[in-house]
Amino acid sequence: MFSLFLFGGIFIMYFNYNNPVHIHFGENCIRQDAEDLIGQGTRALIVTGKSSEKNGCLDDICDVLEDHSIPYTVFNDIIPNPTVASVRRGTQFAKDFGADFIIAAGGGSPMDTAKGIALLARQDLSNDQLFHSEYYTQDVLPTVMVPTTAGTGSEVSEYAVLMDEEAQTKSSISTPLIYPKAAYLDYRYTRTLGRNSTVYPALDALSHSIEGILSQRGDAMITAIAMESIRSISQCFPAMETMELADSHRELLLYGACLGGLVLAHTSTTVVHAMGHSLTFSKGIVHGRANALCLPGYLRFTAGARPDLVSKILHNMGLESLDEMDDVFNRFLGKKEVLTEEEILEFTRIVSHKRNVPNCLVVPTPRDIEIMFRNL
Amino acid sequence: MFSLFLFGGIFIMYFNYNNPVHIHFGENCIRQDAEDLIGQGTRALIVTGKSSEKNGCLDDICDVLEDHSIPYTVFNDIIPNPTVASVRRGTQFAKDFGADFIIAAGGGSPMDTAKGIALLARQDLSNDQLFHSEYYTQDVLPTVMVPTTAGTGSEVSEYAVLMDEEAQTKSSISTPLIYPKAAYLDYRYTRTLGRNSTVYPALDALSHSIEGILSQRGDAMITAIAMESIRSISQCFPAMETMELADSHRELLLYGACLGGLVLAHTSTTVVHAMGHSLTFSKGIVHGRANALCLPGYLRFTAGARPDLVSKILHNMGLESLDEMDDVFNRFLGKKEVLTEEEILEFTRIVSHKRNVPNCLVVPTPRDIEIMFRNL
Repeated sequence: MFSLFLFGGIFIMYFNYNNPVHIHFGENCIRQDAEDLIGQGTRALIVTGKSSEKNGCLDDICDVLEDHSIPYTVFNDIIPNPTVASVRRGTQFAKDFGADFIIAAGGGSPMDTAKGIALLARQDLSNDQLFHSEYYTQDVLPTVMVPTTAGTGSEVSEYAVLMDEEAQTKSSISTPLIYPKAAYLDYRYTRTLGRNSTVYPALDALSHSIEGILSQRGDAMITAIAMESIRSISQCFPAMETMELADSHRELLLYGACLGGLVLAHTSTTVVHAMGHSLTFSKGIVHGRANALCLPGYLRFTAGARPDLVSKILHNMGLESLDEMDDVFNRFLGKKEVLTEEEILEFTRIVSHKRNVPNCLVVPTPRDIEIMFRNL
Repeated sequence: MFSLFLFGGIFIMYFNYNNPVHIHFGENCIRQDAEDLIGQGTRALIVTGKSSEKNGCLDDICDVLEDHSIPYTVFNDIIPNPTVASVRRGTQFAKDFGADFIIAAGGGSPMDTAKGIALLARQDLSNDQLFHSEYYTQDVLPTVMVPTTAGTGSEVSEYAVLMDEEAQTKSSISTPLIYPKAAYLDYRYTRTLGRNSTVYPALDALSHSIEGILSQRGDAMITAIAMESIRSISQCFPAMETMELADSHRELLLYGACLGGLVLAHTSTTVVHAMGHSLTFSKGIVHGRANALCLPGYLRFTAGARPDLVSKILHNMGLESLDEMDDVFNRFLGKKEVLTEEEILEFTRIVSHKRNVPNCLVVPTPRDIEIMFRNL
C-alpha cells in the first residue's frame, strides 16, 4: 500500500481549491476550440511581443478572429519586466479602439501587461491603488492567454507582476478578477525558443511547483498537481541539456509549466522567488535563472526539517540526492555570478522582510537566508 | 527518469480542462470558510435527507446561516434515486419560500435533487425538456454542496441523475449551468456511515477515477488527478474491510471521492456505469455495489489492449495483479447476485446502445459486454 505525502507526519487535509481558467491544451487548439476565444467579446485587443509573429501564434489568433468577423488591433509596445507606464499606454490603446476583450500572446510580459490593461481599462486607479485590491470594483475586461514560453504560468494565475517605478521594485496585482477566462497552450509556438528562453523558464516553472509543495499553503491536492508538473519538466532535463528537444519535450514543458502555474496561483511563492527578485533587480539576472540559482539551496535547507518531502520531490525528478540535483543545475547554470560580501548582507536584509518568506514551509531566519546566498 | 502515462504509446496531449467549483476541504470548514456559503444569496433552501440531522451537518449549516441572519427553510422530502416529480415538489417549495440559493446536504440524492431544483426554480421546462440542454436559458439558482457520503462526486460535477418516469430509466441533466458554486467537505459528517454506505460509495468513486483514465476523454492531466484519487481510496482498503476507519481514512475517502468527481465531471463514465445501471434498474442492486461488480471485468477487458495503463492503475492501488484486485473486490462484495441467461442477454442488448459505451478507451463489442456480464 502506498503512503501519501506526509507533512511532518501529519497529512494536511485542510485546503481550498479553485481555478476558474478554461485550459485548452494541444496542437492547433486555437483553431479547434475557438469558441472560448471568440466568445469573450466583440472587439479584441491583442497584446503581444515581437516573437508571436515568428512563431505562428499571431497568425492563428488573427485568422480565427477574422473567420468570425471580430475586429481587432495589435498592441505590441511590450517591454520585458513591464512597467505601470507601459500598462497605461496599452490601456489608452484599448480604450481608443473600444476593445471589450483582450488576447495576450507571448511570455509573462505580454500576459501580465494584458492583465493590467484588463483592470485599468474599466477602473480609474492611481499607480498606488493599482497594487491594492481594496480599491477595485468588479469591472474588468475578460482576457484570453496564449503563452509562447513554457515558464511563468501566468495563463492560469490571478497575478500580474509589474515594475512599480514609484516603489522602485516589482509589485504584484493579485486578484481573482484578473484570472484569465481561457488559456490556449500549443507547444508549436515554443519550437523556436533558444536555450535561455527554454531552460530558464522551465526551471522557473519547476520552482513554482517545488516551492508550492514546500510552502505554508501546500496541501494534498496541490502537491499531487505539483508532482505531476515536476515529473513532466524533469523528464526533459537530458533534452534540455543538449537542446535536442522533440515536440514531445516541448509539450511536456508547456504542460508542466501550466501545472506549475496552477500551483503558483494556489500557493504563491517562497524565499526562492524573494531571493531571485533581488538577483534580478540588483544584478540583472533573468528571472528564471535567478530562481534556479536559489532553488537547490532552499531544498537543502528544507531537507533538514522535512527530509521525507524533499526526498519525494527528488524522486519525482528522477534524482537520487541533493548532490545529484546540484550537478544537474550546475550544468544548466554554467558559470555562476559572484556576490560581494556587501551584496550578500544587503540582499539578506531586503529578502528577510519579503512577505513570501513566512510562506515557506520551514521559515528561514535572516541567518539562514544569508547562508543560502553565500552557498549560491 | 520517469515516464508519464502513455496511451498506446502516444502521450495524449490534447485536452481541455476546467472545473469552476470552489472546494473547501477540512474539519469545520463550513464555519471556518463560511463566506462562500453565505455569499450566494439572501434566502436559502436547504435540501437534505434525514441523516444530516444525525451527523451534525445540518446544525453547522443552520448555525452559519443564523449567525449571518440569512432566512432558510429545509426541504427534506428526498427519495433515493430522486425522481422528476420529487424535484418538482422541491421546486415549488423553493418558489413558495422565495429562495435565491440552495444548499444541499447529504449524498447523491439531495445533491442531484438540488441541482434539478436550481434549474426548474428559474426555468419552465417540461419533463422531456429537463434532460435536453438546448432548451435551457442561463438563469439558475446558485448551489452549495455539502456531501455527507464519500462517493458520488456530485459536489463538483455538472450532472444530476434523476429517475425519468416517462422514459422509465435514469436520465442525466448535464450542463455547466448546474456546477455548484462551492463544495464543503468535512469528513466528520461521514463518521456515522455504516459498512454499505462507506464501502459501496468508495468503490463507486474508485470506479469514477479508473473509468476516467480508461475513457476516450482520459488525458494526462485528468490521469494525474485520477491516480491521486485511486491512491487515496485504495489506501483505505484494509480499514474498509474491517470497518475500523480512523478519521484519517474518512478524510482520504472523502478526498479521493471528490477527486473522482473532478474526473467524472471531465470524462463522464464508461461501460462500467452502463452495466451498473442495468443491475440497479432491473435487480435493485445499489449503485456503488453495481459498479463495483462490473469494474474488475472492465479492467481485465482493457488490459488486453492497454496492459501498461492497467498495470499503472493496479500499481497505484498498491496491487500486483488483476487476480489480486479480484480477491479484494470479492471480499468487499461477498455473495454475488446471480444473473439468469435471459438477464445476461437482455442487459447486453440494453447496454450495447448506451452512450457511455463508445466512451470506453477500448470500446467493447456486444459480445465483449456479454462476456463481462457472464464473468461478473
